[in-house]
Amino acid sequence: MKKVKKQAVAILGCGTVGGATAKLLTQDIDFLRKRTGVNFYLKYIIDINFNHAKELNLDNSLFVSNLDDVLADPEVLVVVELVGGTTFAKKAAIKILNAKKNLVTANKALLAKHGVELFSIARKNKVSICFEATCAGGIPIIRAIYDGLLANKHDALYGIVNGTCNYILTEMTLNGVSYKRALKEAQEKGLAEADPTLDVSGMDSAHKLAILSSITFGMQIDLDSITVSGIDKLDQFDINSGKELGYIIKLIAMARHDEGQLSLRVAPSFISTEHPLAWVSGPFNAISLYSHALGHSMYYGRGAGGSPTASAVVSDIIGLFLGTAEKFFKTLPIWPDKTKPAALLPSGEGKGRYYLRIVLKNYAGVLAKIAAVFADYNISISSVIQKEITEEMAEEITESYVPVVIITHKVREEALLKAIAKVDTFDFVKGKIVYISIMDEHEEIF
Amino acid sequence: MKKVKKQAVAILGCGTVGGATAKLLTQDIDFLRKRTGVNFYLKYIIDINFNHAKELNLDNSLFVSNLDDVLADPEVLVVVELVGGTTFAKKAAIKILNAKKNLVTANKALLAKHGVELFSIARKNKVSICFEATCAGGIPIIRAIYDGLLANKHDALYGIVNGTCNYILTEMTLNGVSYKRALKEAQEKGLAEADPTLDVSGMDSAHKLAILSSITFGMQIDLDSITVSGIDKLDQFDINSGKELGYIIKLIAMARHDEGQLSLRVAPSFISTEHPLAWVSGPFNAISLYSHALGHSMYYGRGAGGSPTASAVVSDIIGLFLGTAEKFFKTLPIWPDKTKPAALLPSGEGKGRYYLRIVLKNYAGVLAKIAAVFADYNISISSVIQKEITEEMAEEITESYVPVVIITHKVREEALLKAIAKVDTFDFVKGKIVYISIMDEHEEIF
Repeated sequence: MKKVKKQAVAILGCGTVGGATAKLLTQDIDFLRKRTGVNFYLKYIIDINFNHAKELNLDNSLFVSNLDDVLADPEVLVVVELVGGTTFAKKAAIKILNAKKNLVTANKALLAKHGVELFSIARKNKVSICFEATCAGGIPIIRAIYDGLLANKHDALYGIVNGTCNYILTEMTLNGVSYKRALKEAQEKGLAEADPTLDVSGMDSAHKLAILSSITFGMQIDLDSITVSGIDKLDQFDINSGKELGYIIKLIAMARHDEGQLSLRVAPSFISTEHPLAWVSGPFNAISLYSHALGHSMYYGRGAGGSPTASAVVSDIIGLFLGTAEKFFKTLPIWPDKTKPAALLPSGEGKGRYYLRIVLKNYAGVLAKIAAVFADYNISISSVIQKEITEEMAEEITESYVPVVIITHKVREEALLKAIAKVDTFDFVKGKIVYISIMDEHEEIF
Repeated sequence: MKKVKKQAVAILGCGTVGGATAKLLTQDIDFLRKRTGVNFYLKYIIDINFNHAKELNLDNSLFVSNLDDVLADPEVLVVVELVGGTTFAKKAAIKILNAKKNLVTANKALLAKHGVELFSIARKNKVSICFEATCAGGIPIIRAIYDGLLANKHDALYGIVNGTCNYILTEMTLNGVSYKRALKEAQEKGLAEADPTLDVSGMDSAHKLAILSSITFGMQIDLDSITVSGIDKLDQFDINSGKELGYIIKLIAMARHDEGQLSLRVAPSFISTEHPLAWVSGPFNAISLYSHALGHSMYYGRGAGGSPTASAVVSDIIGLFLGTAEKFFKTLPIWPDKTKPAALLPSGEGKGRYYLRIVLKNYAGVLAKIAAVFADYNISISSVIQKEITEEMAEEITESYVPVVIITHKVREEALLKAIAKVDTFDFVKGKIVYISIMDEHEEIF
């Protein structure tokens, strides 16, 4: 990196994370220099609206509105993109890289969609991209993968990487709160956006899974190759029956090897209360990795919020000034622009156990008919539990209907979906069949 | 780092970790080169006995018995010290550094006792020391502290850093096994040494705490300044009564700020079942950090064993060849030789809640006498539970005695010890009073 007497940083976008980063880089700058031995400082905050920056009492002299002026300043070696979105953010990122400035970003959508392109532009300009803050906020999981665990072949990655969803599911599971109410709470606490779609649909988790799995497995991951389902359709009834069976519901972002191919999925899943991920509550995130030398390791912390995310952003800035970021970026062949597209397991080919819930007319022989269909598709059933009707249900269901919970053994997803489609056609089945994947403890491979 | 066409590693000591490291560096060398973009290889295994190496089918051509010959080879840039102990290991480490070879070590006792000296010798010779494997085996916790969390001021560190102790305590807690039997099991499983003293006494945890806290807080930590107690005196009875009160017993290595000073302790502690550390079972380790920007984060994984520890050793080797290790080592002012001795809280000054168990003659007015003593020392009691005598106890205790469990509010340790000493003198008190610290959830500071 070019040696200049004073090394400056610029922040593009002064929202929650931008503001917290600016605060850390001003309030704690003496500590940061003392701790790192690097003499750097925040020179610019680029935005069009400085209301939030003013609320934080950030110095007016930092505020500028023209990115080009900042990029023209040779003292600026690092620009932090924190505007979010993929349209303006992409243009800005390309501008920053072409101006030969190192880029730090917390923008998961941007890297999940345009990572390959941006990384090659960075390489052409001999600068680096750092993105610790894109996944799981302040948890140093990206570093764990590209540095601490570099000696490992990874078999699987399981993550709780969306704090909004985990907060909502924790409330529904532990406090019996309805989805609607839990979401409202999350919004009141500032844990969910006014429009929560990106979070509750699972798309935000998919963006993070694409980034994490690309460096974990050293492959290009196409966002569209991830099967995504969200938490917005979950019913309290199923969360409770799962709990009675010893399972906790979590939105799990999963990437694992399956017969030599990679299978990628984001879905609400039942995990055993024995698994460390089951204990991850509220807005916290955690990522479990299963690796050939280390075995199971897990990384836990705050996956969102200004200050925790700023912790990751600033560690990236420091890495760039230390010169370590450049070495990792230049030498390691694991980055998206240096790898090949992943060999993916065709959707439907995945195997797993499932929780099914069927509401059906309560008369003799009905279960036999359903069992027969499952038998036709070689789906073996490990248990069937006929449940009481809850008051909630009673409102919509006449007494003659009963909910039945079925736990399958390991089945091929495709076969299961076909069987479900068939059973759905029976006139004694009310509404759609609910099915939730059961995530068994992943075996350590040594 | 000197550029040579081929970059060689030598391993000193081919025991469990040495063997696993050699295995990883030979069996998986093609993968490692592909994954890291660095062309390196294992050239020597230095030992006096190669039985274990032969069992692992390591190539005879690697075996040498003279360290000096290896140090004379300019192709060798990194030597990994895995002999353990502090006498020969220290001599060897100094030799390696003076020969201008970078040192990778898993030797916690060596660094805890002689870190300052070794680091300055390394600096004189312009080489680096890497020690990820000294603490919590394969968990990249050292990197988390010096890299991923570098932007943080840390308030506290709590760790379960000894797999042997955690295995024994898990067995005692979950399966009601006695200490003796759990230890025997651990030895049969290869999780405990034939002489388990270093582990069960808490000294091994103290070594790791000294290393972790020195870089977490950027201070020199004198091993003798850590208050250490082990698990060998724990009684099943107390583990069970703690459990009934919602606490799990763990051997906790703790370093935290207390009124601006640092307090360091290794002790069996009761932690609430709500705390993530309570779920860390069997031979697994975990470290919780409380930091001013990130808040609470935790790092979980296998803290011992050949292959998990080799994962950390090899990541250090790769860091040295990448050139990142050198940058961290040279620039950061957090290493023991660059910092000042810690300002420590005088022992006894620490405050906390405690579990006490007193066995006393069962007649009227006895508890009142004890309560009076506690009152004299301003120790307020939150609850008193008179327990049933267990069969085990009945053997040693005549019926007229009953065990009484007392939970205190926050008290100064010194006052508590004085009160206990006083109560111990009462003739109606049988044996010594058992006291175990209760570790409440540490508050996040943002």
